[in-house]
Amino acid sequence: MFLKNAWYVAATPDEIDTKPLGRKICGERIAFYRGAEGKVAAVEDFCPHRGAALSLGYVQDGNLVCGYHGLVMGCDGKVVSMPLQRVGGFPCVKSYPVIERYGFIWVWPGNPEKADPALMPDLFWAESDEWAYGGGLYHIKCDYRLMIDNLMDLTHETYVHADSIGQEEIDETPVNTKVEGDEVITSRYMENIMAPPFWAGNLRGNGLADDVPVDRWQISRFTPPSHILIDVGVAHAGKGGKDAPPENRVRAIVVDFITPETENSHWYFWGMARNFRPDDAELTARIREGQGRIFGQDLDVLEAQQRNLEAYPERRLLMLAIDAGGVQSRRVLDRLVKAE
Amino acid sequence: MFLKNAWYVAATPDEIDTKPLGRKICGERIAFYRGAEGKVAAVEDFCPHRGAALSLGYVQDGNLVCGYHGLVMGCDGKVVSMPLQRVGGFPCVKSYPVIERYGFIWVWPGNPEKADPALMPDLFWAESDEWAYGGGLYHIKCDYRLMIDNLMDLTHETYVHADSIGQEEIDETPVNTKVEGDEVITSRYMENIMAPPFWAGNLRGNGLADDVPVDRWQISRFTPPSHILIDVGVAHAGKGGKDAPPENRVRAIVVDFITPETENSHWYFWGMARNFRPDDAELTARIREGQGRIFGQDLDVLEAQQRNLEAYPERRLLMLAIDAGGVQSRRVLDRLVKAE
Amino acid sequence: MFLKNAWYVAATPDEIDTKPLGRKICGERIAFYRGAEGKVAAVEDFCPHRGAALSLGYVQDGNLVCGYHGLVMGCDGKVVSMPLQRVGGFPCVKSYPVIERYGFIWVWPGNPEKADPALMPDLFWAESDEWAYGGGLYHIKCDYRLMIDNLMDLTHETYVHADSIGQEEIDETPVNTKVEGDEVITSRYMENIMAPPFWAGNLRGNGLADDVPVDRWQISRFTPPSHILIDVGVAHAGKGGKDAPPENRVRAIVVDFITPETENSHWYFWGMARNFRPDDAELTARIREGQGRIFGQDLDVLEAQQRNLEAYPERRLLMLAIDAGGVQSRRVLDRLVKAE
Repeated sequence: MFLKNAWYVAATPDEIDTKPLGRKICGERIAFYRGAEGKVAAVEDFCPHRGAALSLGYVQDGNLVCGYHGLVMGCDGKVVSMPLQRVGGFPCVKSYPVIERYGFIWVWPGNPEKADPALMPDLFWAESDEWAYGGGLYHIKCDYRLMIDNLMDLTHETYVHADSIGQEEIDETPVNTKVEGDEVITSRYMENIMAPPFWAGNLRGNGLADDVPVDRWQISRFTPPSHILIDVGVAHAGKGGKDAPPENRVRAIVVDFITPETENSHWYFWGMARNFRPDDAELTARIREGQGRIFGQDLDVLEAQQRNLEAYPERRLLMLAIDAGGVQSRRVLDRLVKAE
Repeated sequence: MFLKNAWYVAATPDEIDTKPLGRKICGERIAFYRGAEGKVAAVEDFCPHRGAALSLGYVQDGNLVCGYHGLVMGCDGKVVSMPLQRVGGFPCVKSYPVIERYGFIWVWPGNPEKADPALMPDLFWAESDEWAYGGGLYHIKCDYRLMIDNLMDLTHETYVHADSIGQEEIDETPVNTKVEGDEVITSRYMENIMAPPFWAGNLRGNGLADDVPVDRWQISRFTPPSHILIDVGVAHAGKGGKDAPPENRVRAIVVDFITPETENSHWYFWGMARNFRPDDAELTARIREGQGRIFGQDLDVLEAQQRNLEAYPERRLLMLAIDAGGVQSRRVLDRLVKAE
Repeated sequence: MFLKNAWYVAATPDEIDTKPLGRKICGERIAFYRGAEGKVAAVEDFCPHRGAALSLGYVQDGNLVCGYHGLVMGCDGKVVSMPLQRVGGFPCVKSYPVIERYGFIWVWPGNPEKADPALMPDLFWAESDEWAYGGGLYHIKCDYRLMIDNLMDLTHETYVHADSIGQEEIDETPVNTKVEGDEVITSRYMENIMAPPFWAGNLRGNGLADDVPVDRWQISRFTPPSHILIDVGVAHAGKGGKDAPPENRVRAIVVDFITPETENSHWYFWGMARNFRPDDAELTARIREGQGRIFGQDLDVLEAQQRNLEAYPERRLLMLAIDAGGVQSRRVLDRLVKAE
């Protein structure tokens, strides 16, 4: 159950720098590669000659050459040539709209005619010198919607990430959920608390005192098909919270691009953008490492949850206030998939 | 095909000492843990909130806390609390009768109302200072009844365990099978033979000559659901065999608790209780290591047998005299399962 | 989809030298072993007593003894004996015609009455002192017919094996395909070209200049059920090509015995026979290593192709001139299987 007419993050540029990449996205087997002038391209990972995987081939003159018998596939899915063959009557394969932007390769697995670049999300932080970004990729064996649930309610931080970003005040503070068109926003504000280890580290990293009370905020924003950006941070207490002046706060955006592979597995592109000390590559690496460790803790939980749901498909789950973000996000998806 | 209304060995105490244990028993996914005052408890491994595995959580104040969103599950399967929630209307999960006794955690996967502790087996050796016990656990990918067959006929020792407990005299000696109610007993007595390596070692370990003829006995006793205790030993020939005075014999009980996981896999708790030099921990360790190696030899045989039976489900197997123990045990099980 | 009434290569002699070998051939689970006087034998890998795998047993007095309870199986599939049992009424298992010849163990998985040794291929090079042979075995998770396709058209060498035996001239040269009864022959002759690295090495290995133009030939010959022998070599240009005198050429036979395991996996016995410096064991080892590396490159390609074909079973593949060898070979197989 996923939208096909949508832009998904498919890969990071480094994954196709030296050779093509075969990756399944929303059930489609796709070969990604750099075509003419380094422009990213994507075609079905299926050679129309004998069914070989085109992603095992190589790029020549901007086209993907099948590594089995040398069929040359064009970026549009039409066969360009093949040694000693007339290829005019050869069947085509699908090609997929792809865009390289914001440091990611985006793909549109559905109807190419509907692939409007204007539908791409606007990620201001990815194009600003005042922000730095670091992130990674996990392959997770569960329905991508379990990850949406996970991120639209951060109560789990208290339990899954108790030693880094979790703290009791999270689940003592009610969460607020609202729906704006196709977007779902959940927010939680905690005032006059002590920063947990991860944020204390960021305060120090930004040259701020970490032993004084802070105001902490978490604002998760779901946009279809399955992108979740979370505005997070702490400010010295009473300075305005999220809107405090930069010298009193550390702010970041947790970046979550959740891309279905199959009905019960997905690619999870996670990362963090921050607007403090953006030039400090060492800090970027340290945050990335910490976040990778923290987000890795979710994997076991989600994969075990998936197995449980498969074992007991008839059981109805609860929908509490803390689940509203996930529930509303699924409603948006249900509506859009139905329209599709 | 297994009995559900029965006491099965589910775990050893060390497996739940520091954190909960998730284990599937007779098709039931169960979380085992130590509740109030260290008392063992078992509930379905399924959080009624969103289906997370409770066994990935932790114990607090005697209750199991879900590691995802903090739901507190009681030992009776009723939800105790959850941050910011009224839990009165929350659905319950199953709880399972559990008993810690004889150095094992026992569970009753069926109807809790029928779980009578008086139905537990009586293991005198587990509570006597004159006996010592050592054992281990294997996970085996075959129908648990193949293991029952294996243990109710020890002819296989000659072939599978030729270098330790096997000897030609075993399959030259007829086996005797009898059924007493729900119990099945197979026995074999070999007189005036030389002890095989494992028993020669035990003779020496007990300070007895190992280069003289012995009488050897093997008495396998099956009791439902799938416990097999085997009275085994050797005595210097002509001294009374099994009933010889302690200074002329070494005697042990091979302990086999066979617990179905699914229809075609099981947990095998194996061990040996002995009534000689019970305080010699080093001897316990040495016997345990030897037995672990010997019993490990059965794994390949049984798993290959399972694959063969699945490949040829229509083939009828032979039922020879040596198979009578397994055949009769299955009949008892068939009858009891049908009654269930 | 495979012929059952045919001789297949099942193993190499070293695989059964010290103990029995269990291997599935054309869907049949077979135990191979050396019976009386070292003569190879093959029976179903299923003990009629309780379904244990006979291949886990051992050989005694020329018979296979089941490693579980000691049933003694005869080479004809009839039970010889079992301790304390009368075995007259025991069911038989299948036995399979087997022949050890040409350095391989051959098996006939179909109707034993039709197993005529005269139907074995004639491998003159395997019995001649002027030829040397080296080879290996790969297990490949794809329909064996994909390997037939692979070998009946060597265009792929240009792409899959670009750094060893591939060269552009291969796919610039048309291939010739002809069918002679049940045999299919594809051939390609390239004149006045430079030898690729593998053949340059062989020229040097044979004491010939490797920096002069050569004529190169490839003649693939498919014979049912799935044996492909490829006459390959290079000769100094203009000396007669394949028929040049030995002092002007290096010639070899690429040996491919392709044995189905299941519908979508097979055993691939590959090797090379050469008629130059046959006594040079070090050269045999070096060629074998190089060929093993080259042929290993096909595995990924073929297994990915298999996954693609399973994912898109409805897609029709192209049948180009270069595919004629594989297509014709499949037609022969279709006809013979239908007749069977």
